[in-house]
Formats: sequence, structure tokens, C-alpha cells
Amino acid sequence: MSRSINLAVIPGDGIGQEVVAEGLKVLSAVLPQDVKLETKDYDFGAKRYHATGETLTDTDLAELKRHDAILLGAIGDPSVPSGVLERGFLLKLRFAFDHHVNLRPSKLLPGVATPLAGQPAIDFVVVREGTEGPYTGNGGTIRKGTPHEVATEVSVNTAFGVERVVRDAFARAQARPRKKLTLVHKNNVLTFAGHLWTNVFTKVAEEYPEVTTDYIHVDAATIYLVTDPARFDVIVTDNLFGDIITDLAAAVSGGIGVAASGNINPSGEFPSMFEPVHGSAPDIAGQGKADPSATVLSVALLLRHLGHDAEAARIEEAVSADLAQRGALPARSTSEIGDALAARVAG
Amino acid sequence: MSRSINLAVIPGDGIGQEVVAEGLKVLSAVLPQDVKLETKDYDFGAKRYHATGETLTDTDLAELKRHDAILLGAIGDPSVPSGVLERGFLLKLRFAFDHHVNLRPSKLLPGVATPLAGQPAIDFVVVREGTEGPYTGNGGTIRKGTPHEVATEVSVNTAFGVERVVRDAFARAQARPRKKLTLVHKNNVLTFAGHLWTNVFTKVAEEYPEVTTDYIHVDAATIYLVTDPARFDVIVTDNLFGDIITDLAAAVSGGIGVAASGNINPSGEFPSMFEPVHGSAPDIAGQGKADPSATVLSVALLLRHLGHDAEAARIEEAVSADLAQRGALPARSTSEIGDALAARVAG
Ligand SMILES: CC(C)[C@H](C(=O)O)[C@@H](O)C(=O)O
Ligand SMILES: CC(C)[C@H](C(=O)O)[C@@H](O)C(=O)O
Repeated sequence: MSRSINLAVIPGDGIGQEVVAEGLKVLSAVLPQDVKLETKDYDFGAKRYHATGETLTDTDLAELKRHDAILLGAIGDPSVPSGVLERGFLLKLRFAFDHHVNLRPSKLLPGVATPLAGQPAIDFVVVREGTEGPYTGNGGTIRKGTPHEVATEVSVNTAFGVERVVRDAFARAQARPRKKLTLVHKNNVLTFAGHLWTNVFTKVAEEYPEVTTDYIHVDAATIYLVTDPARFDVIVTDNLFGDIITDLAAAVSGGIGVAASGNINPSGEFPSMFEPVHGSAPDIAGQGKADPSATVLSVALLLRHLGHDAEAARIEEAVSADLAQRGALPARSTSEIGDALAARVAG
Repeated sequence: MSRSINLAVIPGDGIGQEVVAEGLKVLSAVLPQDVKLETKDYDFGAKRYHATGETLTDTDLAELKRHDAILLGAIGDPSVPSGVLERGFLLKLRFAFDHHVNLRPSKLLPGVATPLAGQPAIDFVVVREGTEGPYTGNGGTIRKGTPHEVATEVSVNTAFGVERVVRDAFARAQARPRKKLTLVHKNNVLTFAGHLWTNVFTKVAEEYPEVTTDYIHVDAATIYLVTDPARFDVIVTDNLFGDIITDLAAAVSGGIGVAASGNINPSGEFPSMFEPVHGSAPDIAGQGKADPSATVLSVALLLRHLGHDAEAARIEEAVSADLAQRGALPARSTSEIGDALAARVAG
């Protein structure tokens, strides 16, 4: 547990500014006096792209690397062509800092609305691979714009990359009371990648005799996520499947207003990055309408990653308590919710 | 509208036999006297694979090609390694017969249970591309089984392949009352394929000024499918995204017990194939527990494809009426449900 936290802050676009402000408010409130918090703001996102054409330079990466961790609000704006900031910033950072464990917990907290009937018990975590699969940018286009265009996307999967994330997921499953790990893939169709994932999973499983394992195709997983989400404890999956099922998981467990994530480099060679699953929501930006809970919960993941477990738990309890009584309160602004959470964790 | 139907029947594995028998029962009952129905059974699936090592030969394909259409129950058994029957039979047939329009309607019928709270209005159809994307089998493995294994999967997308399915989807949207078409992709990450899909979609849209269009990333689409499924009318999407979202769509609109599909070759050069979305469910096979409704609804899609619209509608009404009163009845066997549906369509 560190006695100082040197944090890179990337508010980003849209509601990013507003939610990050509340995340930092709660972070300051929860930290003990003797932990020194230093933050530095970075202006990545649409504005900088329009002003300079830059998304993330080598100099930027060198600067970011000096921090203990990164807190990000949201990146993305309709004024920037689709893919530019995603590939040029978000994915570039995940790849450059080898964020191979993309951690996305889903917990349906008491009193929180879900689109599912009967309020099922939901408490699982998805360990999504973050540096391989169809996200590598491999592929290309020939005869662009003609009737003979061919565009390819190559999913790249390595034993090295699959094994390290599968090991991380087994360790997490082992540490949880239910000790259950589900592999989600599509090994009956994507047989090359599917065999690799399945073989590595089966081999690592031998080292974790206490962990119960199963395998589900990604299409079937979406069914279970709405008919029986309680069956899941830890899920490990590929980058693209993880992207898809974690949005669904967020939707059934309270919505993206409360979904947190960590882009983790477990070795600590590079700083890990924490961010809400939601996007920049330009339609409600600047109006104080955004729910900062997802960002605040991402701060909890950040604290746990840095060894501040007690503070992380305090934040999670505060968000849970706040959500539980939300139905009884009049609507509050982004900063009013942040104030309430800061008061709870300080209290 | 044909005065005779020459049907290839592939019962397949597990519950396939049982549900196909009921599908044929209802088909016979609904057809007018003067339409001659000829059927021929084919023994594809796990049994034949174990006996001969064959999944689908060139001779088989030549024989199947002579029929007007194909009705399939389910293919797949745990005794066969994952991928063998999928790649060797199901996908081989889709590719050989150029089934590029994979049609999957989702309609939440009155009285049918859904995992969603508040019984939303659901009535949309997914047009899934069936012959390209990550399903082509392109890719490979090097250094298999070693710590240096690399496995790739190549998604192949052509202007030819994308345009024909996008055109099909626009025509379907144009023919529906709401005239709305949504493209689902992940064009912010899979930028090569994403640009192709988005450009073709935008270009074809110009020819359909009455059709309202929008675009949603596949991850966000899973959110809308559980929070606001009523927003969808027609969806067009890639092979893999279509696989994933149609299972979710089935789950929210009554479950895979009632989800039908057509693998369609619109030119008629090859027979189209109709099948329930569900699998062979070996755990309940041979017990009369399977719901034949999905197969019976697939028969309706088959009839509509062959121009027998009135008969297709009669089947859909019968299934709808049967489901509506199901809650009030004691549990029935597969063949009892088939009998009830046959009586309704004949009546
Ligand atoms: C914005 C996009 C690049 C990103 C992804 O696809 O990973 C997002 O959807 C997410 O889940 O973090
Ligand atoms: C069994 C499998 C090959 C198939 C697919 O992935 O297309 C199935 O999931 C489906 O949706 O028809």
C-alpha cells in the first residue's frame, strides 16, 4: 500500500469532465491524511485532436508512464470520425501500456433498477483480454470504394497472451467464495483461436483444483446473462466477446451509469487505467445530468489496485447506500451525487 | 406459389427428430389438397459421422440441391468434438448453398414469458449475413500446443457480399409498416470491415428514402435489446454479430423454444434451409419434452419463402394462439403440442 498516489487524470470529452471531478472529490475524501495525492490533468480527446491533429504521442506516453495510475472520464465526440479516437487514443493506450486484464465487475446492488424481471442476484466479474483478438488492428482493405472491395480483420491470439489473462482469471476465481470460472468463446466456429483458448484454459485449470470451471459459447452467454445471470462468478473471455458481454452485463446490473472498469497491467511495468464503461454522452454533457457513480466505482477499483483495500470498500459501500435510497430522493445533479458520496466516505 | 413442394428433411441429432416430426405434421395439415408434398429424409449428424466419418459430401450436396427447400431439426452432439459438425455440416451447407441471408424474426407474442420486466413490445427481424465475416474459416495456427502458439481468425468482408445482404434488408424494411433499418457493427474498432459496411449501407440508403436508418455498435445493441427492444424494426449485421444478438433477441422474446430462422438463398439457385435457432439439447432428447414451436415457425418461414403466404400466416396465428393459452393448460408433450397446432391450422 503506497503512502502517495501520483495520478494522471484524463477528463476527456462530453460528460467526462463532470464525472471525473466527482471521482476526484470522493478520492480526496476517502484517503487518509497521510496518503499524499498528486494529480496532473491531461487534455486528450476531441478538442486536442481538432487543435493539433494529435491523439496520443510518444511524448504523451512517456509522461503518462511516470504516474502510479490513470483515471479517465470518457473519450469520443461525434465531430471526430468513428475510429480515430478509439484507435488513436483508447486502444493505443491499452496496447502501449499492455493493459491485458480488462476487469469489469457486475453487481446488482439493492434497490437498483434492472430491466430484468424478478431482481435476480447478480455478482460476477468479467476478465476481458485487452491486447489481442480482433482489436489488434491487423487486417486491411483492397480496392476501397469499388464494387470489388475486400476488407479483412484479423483476430490475433497468442499462447502468451491467452495464458496470462486466463491465469489472472483463475487467481481471481480462487479468491472468491464461489470459486467458479466460465470461459466464454465461440470455439465451435472460430476453431483456431477457440482451440488455443480452450486448451490453455484446460491446462491452467489443473493448477486450480478448487475452482469449478465451465465453457459457454458467446451467443449462449447472452441468453444466460438475461435468464440466469446468477450462474456467473468469474468469466474470462476474448477482447471482442468481452466488449459485447460486458455492455450487456452492465445493462442487466443497473446500467452503464454504475459500471466501472479497470485496464490493468498486473506486473506494474506500466500504470493501469480506470474508467467508467459508459461513453462521453455528448447529448447530456455540461448539464449536470450524468451519474458519476461509475467513475466513483472506478476510483474504488483504482484504490484496490494500489493496495488501498479498506478505502476501496468504503467507496463501494457509499455508492451502494446512495443507490439504495435514490428512489426516495428527488433527482440530484452530478455534483450533488458526488457531494453525497464524498460525505459518506469521509463520515 | 408452387403446386408441389419437394422437401429435404434433416432431423439431425438430439431433439431434432422429435421437433421435425411435429413440423412436418403441421406442414401436412396446413397445405391445401392440391399442393403435393414430397419429403425425403437425410441422416446427417452425429450418428452418420461416427459410422462413416462423413459430415456432408459432394454427393450429398448434389442430392440436396434437387429439393425446393430444406427443413432441419438440429445438428450437434457432445460425442463429436466441438467444431466438427458445425464446420463440417452446418457452415459447409450455408456456404455451399450461398445462404447469405440468415433471417431471424423476433416477436414477443401475447402471454409468452420474457425475462424482461414490463413485457415490452418486441417485433423486429434480424438479417444476418451468412457467408462472410469471421465465419469463413480463414486463419490458422502456428506452433500448436507450444508456449509460442499463434492462432488467427480472419474476418473476410466483400463489397459484393455486404451489398447484397444490405439490399435485402432495405427491401424488407421498406415492406414493413415502420420502415426502419438499423446497422449493427463495431466500426469504431473493426475499422476496415466497419468502413465497408458503413459505406455500403449509406450508399444503398439513398435508394430507399422512405426507410429511416440508424447505426449502433454491437456492444450498445445488446443494451438496447434489454432496455428498449421496441426501438428495433429491421436490423442488418455481420455473421458473428448476428449470431450473438439473435440468441439474445430470442431470449428476450420468448426464448429459443419459439425462435425460428431461415438460411436463405434469395436467387433460388440453391434451396434455402429452415431451422429452429435452438440446438440439439441432448439432455432432454427422446423424452417428448422439447417445444416444437420454433420448428413449426420455421416451417412458416419456409412456406412464405415458397410463396405460400396464407398458409404461413395460418401457422403463425396457430402458434400465437397456442402460446397465449399455454399458461392455463397442464404441460404437454412435444407431439401433443404438434397435434394441437395441426388441429388449429387444419380447422
Ligand atoms: C470505445 C471502444 C474502443 C471500447 C472498446 O470497444 O473496447 C469500448 O466499447 C469499451 O468497452 O471500452
Ligand atoms: C451452431 C453454430 C455453427 C451456429 C452459428 O454460429 O451460426 C448457431 O449458433 C446458429 O446461430 O445457427
